[in-house]
Amino acid sequence: MGLFITFEGIEGCGKTTQLGRLATALRDAGRRVLVTREPGGCPIADAIRAILLDRANQAMAPRAELLLYAAARAQHVEEVIAPALAAGQIVLCDRFSDATVAYQGYGRGLPPDLIAEFNAIASGPLVPDLTLLLDFPAEIGLTRARHRNSGSSGPDEGRFEEESLAFHCRVRDGYLAQATSQSRFRIIDALGSEDQVATRIKAAVELLMGGSL
Amino acid sequence: MGLFITFEGIEGCGKTTQLGRLATALRDAGRRVLVTREPGGCPIADAIRAILLDRANQAMAPRAELLLYAAARAQHVEEVIAPALAAGQIVLCDRFSDATVAYQGYGRGLPPDLIAEFNAIASGPLVPDLTLLLDFPAEIGLTRARHRNSGSSGPDEGRFEEESLAFHCRVRDGYLAQATSQSRFRIIDALGSEDQVATRIKAAVELLMGGSL
Repeated sequence: MGLFITFEGIEGCGKTTQLGRLATALRDAGRRVLVTREPGGCPIADAIRAILLDRANQAMAPRAELLLYAAARAQHVEEVIAPALAAGQIVLCDRFSDATVAYQGYGRGLPPDLIAEFNAIASGPLVPDLTLLLDFPAEIGLTRARHRNSGSSGPDEGRFEEESLAFHCRVRDGYLAQATSQSRFRIIDALGSEDQVATRIKAAVELLMGGSL
Repeated sequence: MGLFITFEGIEGCGKTTQLGRLATALRDAGRRVLVTREPGGCPIADAIRAILLDRANQAMAPRAELLLYAAARAQHVEEVIAPALAAGQIVLCDRFSDATVAYQGYGRGLPPDLIAEFNAIASGPLVPDLTLLLDFPAEIGLTRARHRNSGSSGPDEGRFEEESLAFHCRVRDGYLAQATSQSRFRIIDALGSEDQVATRIKAAVELLMGGSL
């Protein structure tokens, strides 16, 4: 079996950049790495992702949103993640089930029991070996994310970034609550330069793998 | 509260045509009628429908499919069906939760308990007042449906119609098993002319409404 490492954090925390840097470092060390993301990661899940992130879909019912995330995850796990792990690869995934707890649970206020049940259905017995939570204040993340999207013409995480600061504060709290109750989490301070954050992440991964990269 | 009437049956059973005829008859009798369908019925659910029925998506995991149906239903109920019923309308819906039991449960072999749980999450406490099951042999339905689709250029239920005859026989069995165990069902013999079937349906609806249309 390979290793399953997930990246979590609020918008603008830099997880996508850092995930790419870790992938490069692991490949340079001779490891086989699969980079993927949620929601998405395969054609069916990408189609679901497009519905979830479309700014036109503000009328989405919270239960429908939760079910769409679960559907995308079920497909992604079965078609992409589980086969890669079975083949011994290191899978780096940009968001996974903890994001559902943070966004739909803490952010939107859906019952945690319901979310836990859906997550179990969506991902089955699969749990990350390591979850890197890139943490910093919600105000900073939101400013960064808005700045990024205003200069982009492609699909983005627009529907979520239009949520209020209060929403993103609840999401951050949701992440921190999970991180302090589950040993697979490492809270990475996401303030600082890209290089500084990358060094922190590398240390956490080396600890997991029992050796230097 | 209005009345919630669902139409069920295997491909090619004529339910869409008959639903349209019943809508006309009810409107002619002065009733306010909303015609809708599953999966779909509103923009978000229609987008989900497009993923479900796309022939390119043969790799869809059974759990992902089930979750997509549930997502579409949750949105449809909240945005369309519940408000119409609350406004006193008669809602005629082309397929509803019984289709999930028949197709994903009996057809694909997913655990009935899991499906019941998902249906409950998707539609909440909403149960049809009357479910019309248009029944006839699977061989005939499949022949009709294939003939119809070969002459059409629009979106169709292609992915399901490419399933085997054995699959459609299991689906029919699943519908009949539900119909014989729940009193809200009426099994309508779907063999015969359009007029004959329409007369049978009208009788079932008059029984529900306690008077002639």
